Amino acid sequence: MALNPADDAFAARLGALLPVGTLRPLSPRYATEPRGRFRAREGIVAAPASPAEVAAIVRACAAARVGIVPFGGGTGLVGGQILPDGPAPVILSTERLNRIRGVDGTEDALVAEAGATLAAVRAAAEQADRLFPLSLASEGSATIGGVLAANAGGTQVLRHGNARALCLGLEAVLADGSVWHGLTPLRKDNLGYDLRDLLIGAEGTLGIVTAASLRLFPRPARTATAWLALRDPAAALALLGRARAALGDGVTACELMARQGFDFVAETLPDIRQPMTPPPAWALLIEAGGPAGFDIDAALEAAVADAMAAGEVADGVIARSGAQRAAFWAAREAIPEANRRIGAIASHDIAVPLAALPGFIDRVAATVAAMGPFRLNVFGHAGDGNLHVNLFPPAGQGRAAFADRRAALTRAVHDLAHGMGGSVAAEHGVGRFKTGALARYADPAKLAAMRAVKAALDPLGILNPGAVLPPG
Amino acid sequence: MALNPADDAFAARLGALLPVGTLRPLSPRYATEPRGRFRAREGIVAAPASPAEVAAIVRACAAARVGIVPFGGGTGLVGGQILPDGPAPVILSTERLNRIRGVDGTEDALVAEAGATLAAVRAAAEQADRLFPLSLASEGSATIGGVLAANAGGTQVLRHGNARALCLGLEAVLADGSVWHGLTPLRKDNLGYDLRDLLIGAEGTLGIVTAASLRLFPRPARTATAWLALRDPAAALALLGRARAALGDGVTACELMARQGFDFVAETLPDIRQPMTPPPAWALLIEAGGPAGFDIDAALEAAVADAMAAGEVADGVIARSGAQRAAFWAAREAIPEANRRIGAIASHDIAVPLAALPGFIDRVAATVAAMGPFRLNVFGHAGDGNLHVNLFPPAGQGRAAFADRRAALTRAVHDLAHGMGGSVAAEHGVGRFKTGALARYADPAKLAAMRAVKAALDPLGILNPGAVLPPG
Repeated sequence: MALNPADDAFAARLGALLPVGTLRPLSPRYATEPRGRFRAREGIVAAPASPAEVAAIVRACAAARVGIVPFGGGTGLVGGQILPDGPAPVILSTERLNRIRGVDGTEDALVAEAGATLAAVRAAAEQADRLFPLSLASEGSATIGGVLAANAGGTQVLRHGNARALCLGLEAVLADGSVWHGLTPLRKDNLGYDLRDLLIGAEGTLGIVTAASLRLFPRPARTATAWLALRDPAAALALLGRARAALGDGVTACELMARQGFDFVAETLPDIRQPMTPPPAWALLIEAGGPAGFDIDAALEAAVADAMAAGEVADGVIARSGAQRAAFWAAREAIPEANRRIGAIASHDIAVPLAALPGFIDRVAATVAAMGPFRLNVFGHAGDGNLHVNLFPPAGQGRAAFADRRAALTRAVHDLAHGMGGSVAAEHGVGRFKTGALARYADPAKLAAMRAVKAALDPLGILNPGAVLPPG
Repeated sequence: MALNPADDAFAARLGALLPVGTLRPLSPRYATEPRGRFRAREGIVAAPASPAEVAAIVRACAAARVGIVPFGGGTGLVGGQILPDGPAPVILSTERLNRIRGVDGTEDALVAEAGATLAAVRAAAEQADRLFPLSLASEGSATIGGVLAANAGGTQVLRHGNARALCLGLEAVLADGSVWHGLTPLRKDNLGYDLRDLLIGAEGTLGIVTAASLRLFPRPARTATAWLALRDPAAALALLGRARAALGDGVTACELMARQGFDFVAETLPDIRQPMTPPPAWALLIEAGGPAGFDIDAALEAAVADAMAAGEVADGVIARSGAQRAAFWAAREAIPEANRRIGAIASHDIAVPLAALPGFIDRVAATVAAMGPFRLNVFGHAGDGNLHVNLFPPAGQGRAAFADRRAALTRAVHDLAHGMGGSVAAEHGVGRFKTGALARYADPAKLAAMRAVKAALDPLGILNPGAVLPPG
């Protein structure tokens, strides 16, 4: 069932159904992605301003069998938002679907349209004295529709879960143009199958989210943050255990960073102030929240002191102010941007069981070293077992010369993670970059079920064609 | 596509595939359910001891087009475990699939087979100094497979979510007899669609869970529990707000109970010691957990004192020992059993937005009073907006005389909840009892998607026929 292109005749028909200005020509903003691996060559951009307009677009595409590529903030790292080949699609940008429809402190819930940025949602929650905990480096651009499509993770998963754990309900347009009105603040609603979680993480291949009802939390009255120099990655797990014993499940973040990342930051973002100079071989940013009557700084300090006495931690700084805490996070969040400026040959988003994490780091370093003179930057959310394993050319060399090594490097990193019981797609999604990995590593029964579900919910194959599912 | 009966010839063929003793005749244990509304008249009971045996049964049933009814602890309240009519099915009991396969303190994860009771899972977690928070009155009999099939809620949802929020991965047999090996301790794994959450809450209609990987939590070092006499149901929300302001999201339970429930307990379970005598018109059981360095009793007492000063709370007791805490919970958990002994005409499991909760209680009381001399017992998980609304005959009368009023009463209660933005199936599932309610209240686009998913994953319709989905 081949798709048809969104050609001039189709564009004219579609434009007649929509307010003037809804359709736009393809421009670089919609054609490129942060990794520089995929580029859209053709397509019509549509920027609907209401769920009804989204439904009209989907109905028109279904009738003409034209593909639709949903487009949020454009920050996705696996090419889910870019169709590089095949018949020209409609690129459905959610940029005008960006309202916060409401914030409800009684229900601890917020309704945001798909195109609202994560930062806007966090700010709206804060204005109501609530916390929306999902947080990631690109939150100024990443949209709620995008983070739900990818089931994004970020730095607060340890305590608050991935995006799906923060979503109470959805409004979405299905492949036949019907609108599912599933926005609800309810914590308990089992009236039928979990369509919400099926759409979350499906990267726009099963339906197009137009709005979401999101969970809010009390803002922690007190927050404690430490920046630590670790003996080795295993010490991160030891410290996490100590912190959870002292602080319960108030530990919200546990970020591991290798020296290579700080060197990249120093080279490309010299204005970023680094918490420790020279940077340690391994640093950990750990943060916890708690109620007003709890001296959380003292509890975290005691855990750190025990870790220092045990030799797990060589040095540590507890943030003494909000500004210092923000500086710690700025140093952490600078790492992905520094990586981009250096230019990775290959980037990976894997997760392994916590017990396997130190061994994985050792083995990936040895494996990569045996394959060539690559620079390795490992960092990520150690508390979730989620590491970003990015490989760079030797200093002074560009990545282009190593493009032919990319597949073998990725295969080696993925094989290692998978072989240790891990995932090769932890928090960035599958997109178009990892469809081959999905074919290789996914459980066969699950993959068959995925294909059946896709055929059932999008029988024409118009929703984000080529994303997630490998060619059958 | 009519199903075929599991007749003697089929039983002989199936028995030859399985170890001796796997098949059993139908006995009352597998034929009845707690509400006494459904009864199985025929069927073969199969008690497989391994996922491979489950797969063999499913393949045989698929080949012969015989229905399969999964059966866990038999505690389900909506008839999901009982097929009252149609061709005789295989009743697949998970009673021999009851191992705890492992408890891992590093990963904070536990793998339990489907037939392990919730109490056994909680005990295994506790032995490893961890908490598995799902808790409900029937946990001594309810199985992990059953609570996942129903996405059960219980008393700890406020802090820890429903069953789905506590599940990391599944092992399940799909309708073609293939086994999905999806057990994982990973917190981040986005390699493909969320088959896990699709099976959770599907009540065995999309696949048969054979084992689950479950999330564990640090045990709270300190717990504070209060039993309060409330001015009215609205005061429960005010108190919850005060408690969350003082304790953050450490508030784990917020249970509202009406005097009628305590009167039923006094009548049918006189050995239960009630925390307040005479019982108040409305009581609240509120509980919170926190780390060792936090005086959580003092924080909860301060919140209660503020509520008393504001007139929201008339009287209160803070538990001073584990025994007193256990006595509070025993009084709370006695209510469903007392309800059973009195014998409800109709029982309901609804949720409404928190802001609507007091108004719902007023309106349901007025509506029911206008329909006849019924006794109304409202109780449940006020912090989640989840109430059980059970209707009883006048004192001294049996429920049989009112059976013809049941449909109208249920319709009235459900219409009220739905009309206030609520759910008519909050935590007990849909089963066979609420398929009509699902047809009436579910979003049409969602219902169509559910039918498409069911047809895709169970094209022969052999998995728990007649459950969840209304006749098409």
